[in-house]
Amino acid sequence: MAAKAGNMMIAQSGGPSMVINQSMVGAVLTARASKEIGRIYGSLHGIKGILNEDFINLRKETVATLEAVAASPSSSLGSVRMKPTADDCAKIFDILKKYKIEYFFYAGGNDSAETTYIIQEEAKAAGYPLKCFHIPKTIDNDLKENDHTPGFGSAAKFVACSLQGLNLDNRALPGVHISVIMGRHAGFLTAAAALGRIHEDDGPHLIYLPEKPFSMKQFVSDVKKTYKKYGRCLIAVSEGIADSKGTAIAAQLSKEVDSHGNAQLSGTGALGDLLANEIKANTDIDRVRADTFGYLQRSFPGMVSDVDAAEARKVGETAVKEALGGAKSGSIAIKRKPGKKYQISYKRVPLKNVAKYTKEVPLKYINKDGNDVTKAFIDYATPIVGKLPKIGRLKAVPAGK
Amino acid sequence: MAAKAGNMMIAQSGGPSMVINQSMVGAVLTARASKEIGRIYGSLHGIKGILNEDFINLRKETVATLEAVAASPSSSLGSVRMKPTADDCAKIFDILKKYKIEYFFYAGGNDSAETTYIIQEEAKAAGYPLKCFHIPKTIDNDLKENDHTPGFGSAAKFVACSLQGLNLDNRALPGVHISVIMGRHAGFLTAAAALGRIHEDDGPHLIYLPEKPFSMKQFVSDVKKTYKKYGRCLIAVSEGIADSKGTAIAAQLSKEVDSHGNAQLSGTGALGDLLANEIKANTDIDRVRADTFGYLQRSFPGMVSDVDAAEARKVGETAVKEALGGAKSGSIAIKRKPGKKYQISYKRVPLKNVAKYTKEVPLKYINKDGNDVTKAFIDYATPIVGKLPKIGRLKAVPAGK
Repeated sequence: MAAKAGNMMIAQSGGPSMVINQSMVGAVLTARASKEIGRIYGSLHGIKGILNEDFINLRKETVATLEAVAASPSSSLGSVRMKPTADDCAKIFDILKKYKIEYFFYAGGNDSAETTYIIQEEAKAAGYPLKCFHIPKTIDNDLKENDHTPGFGSAAKFVACSLQGLNLDNRALPGVHISVIMGRHAGFLTAAAALGRIHEDDGPHLIYLPEKPFSMKQFVSDVKKTYKKYGRCLIAVSEGIADSKGTAIAAQLSKEVDSHGNAQLSGTGALGDLLANEIKANTDIDRVRADTFGYLQRSFPGMVSDVDAAEARKVGETAVKEALGGAKSGSIAIKRKPGKKYQISYKRVPLKNVAKYTKEVPLKYINKDGNDVTKAFIDYATPIVGKLPKIGRLKAVPAGK
Repeated sequence: MAAKAGNMMIAQSGGPSMVINQSMVGAVLTARASKEIGRIYGSLHGIKGILNEDFINLRKETVATLEAVAASPSSSLGSVRMKPTADDCAKIFDILKKYKIEYFFYAGGNDSAETTYIIQEEAKAAGYPLKCFHIPKTIDNDLKENDHTPGFGSAAKFVACSLQGLNLDNRALPGVHISVIMGRHAGFLTAAAALGRIHEDDGPHLIYLPEKPFSMKQFVSDVKKTYKKYGRCLIAVSEGIADSKGTAIAAQLSKEVDSHGNAQLSGTGALGDLLANEIKANTDIDRVRADTFGYLQRSFPGMVSDVDAAEARKVGETAVKEALGGAKSGSIAIKRKPGKKYQISYKRVPLKNVAKYTKEVPLKYINKDGNDVTKAFIDYATPIVGKLPKIGRLKAVPAGK
């Protein structure tokens, strides 16, 4: 036990998720239960809040409020997409020192892990004994070291449910339907579109991930073949699909880039419309529609995966426990035991192992033709996503003619 | 009691909804409980199924299957968008006669009511004693004679939840966000975007419906003002917004028209992107995003409004009971008693009163500036939509500086 309590700072960064508040609340309640932690600051909008000294007092929140926030989507402390410069880091230290911060927790994806890593390295260089922890979060499910990441299960549930509904809609009014799903470099979320399939003819019939080069010619040919077989065709495609040179199809249509060098792929229907127009131009199918799921898939309330929510809470709690247990830095990774039974554990890993780079969908989860997922993916994702709504179908005994 | 049982045909038409199967199952189970009804045919894909004699035997379905189907979104009998010609009607009668159909039930919106009305009129002219009933359904909530229509409450719940989430997402990463919501001539569904607002600064901050002429100049000015006030701006806009000449903004971008003369407005992100580009070009706001809800809002599973589901069941049951009670034709309208307490009743009204034309959002539900809804709308819609997910917000006691 430390004789003197140290202050703590927590912040959220990157794209919101449905369970990132679970992690924040897990960390805050664990910290509040410890005598070793003094003040608990929440920085608003990530490191931007530190630079602006825009802090709130997380000891002033009731447990009831914290639990209501934990159950609500999006980053309640506000978020930011910002890579700190060396100058920013110097300012950040001055401010963290001024507030006597000994514990720093940053929840986010690989870019946020990179930010945490930069701060840790700069702190080391400055001889400042700051404990730096990254709390994993990303609906993209693309963090290294992790079997899967908090936020993915709930977003995947939204995507799977959406496709269940769109499949029924497309059965009722047949045609081609394209769903554009989030995922810059990793197609996990798009792959989750397959999780609601029950019958042989259920869509999505075609699934395209960024991990395999996207060929427009192959795409049109796949759609024609599927349409011929089922009289309809439901497609799930990742916003990050890229040609054989690695250039994202959507990036060819977008000009906006953030400070981490990422082109804007979401918040526009351009990719869906491009693909729909390609089908219209190259087939005689008259009903072609495209929907871009956009921000709904990461912020929809009331669609949380219970497993995801519980794990998100746990990574927040674990980060604080590790810091209290004497660890100096790290990210909390979710590890999974091999085997049929779903069993996971939480492990502290070095920040640099998680920072910057992303994990892709393993090739064993993608079929040979690069237009669907395999059973191995279904087995991998099902326990993380949990139960989907039950879908009924008529036996439909023919009575005509 | 009739000495001889007459056969029945039921079909679904127009855009699917989350509860149209409730109506079908309500009608079928009521018919199965009556000795006056013989065979129960389901026609697949509306009147197209009649022309193709593509029927199923709805007596062969178990109650468990029917209940599972009732709880599932989209039209389980398949749907169609087709206005019958005089020729089609002649063929339809030949086939209905061949199958000894005495009861015809058609579930759908105003176009489907028109189809039912045409069939009724043609049957009358041909001296064929066919009992023709329209079962109301439309997420657009735009049927005449009805206080509201089955399908609206659940779609409105999806829209309200979506905006709850998008509001939190936009608070975390501020900017301008545009949600494009279904509604060709009636803005009820877009208006429902307001139902999840709790705090004064909660979005949507601006709501545009087709009932008021849309001015791009006013729109840009509204966004600037809101952004200045809140540092962000969440907008809900109907796909059917039209200029002062009545031309839909989206129709200017679309070439596809169905047999009822409706231009394709859904299934493309073009309107959202057009509006986003207008903001980008005329302000210095750098983060502008648009999401088009598309087909998710009418087919999402697990988001049903309980009130909506119960009412959808009831209109199906009532249609069959009216037919069995001796009525010759009609549509089942939902009437509402004035007053604070939510009380409704079901009334048979003439088909022609519901056919073809649509009901618009009353002006008392739209604010003076034409960019928001009034409290009167919230009071109107809340009991139909039911409970929304609880949203928590931090007290956020400042601790910096």
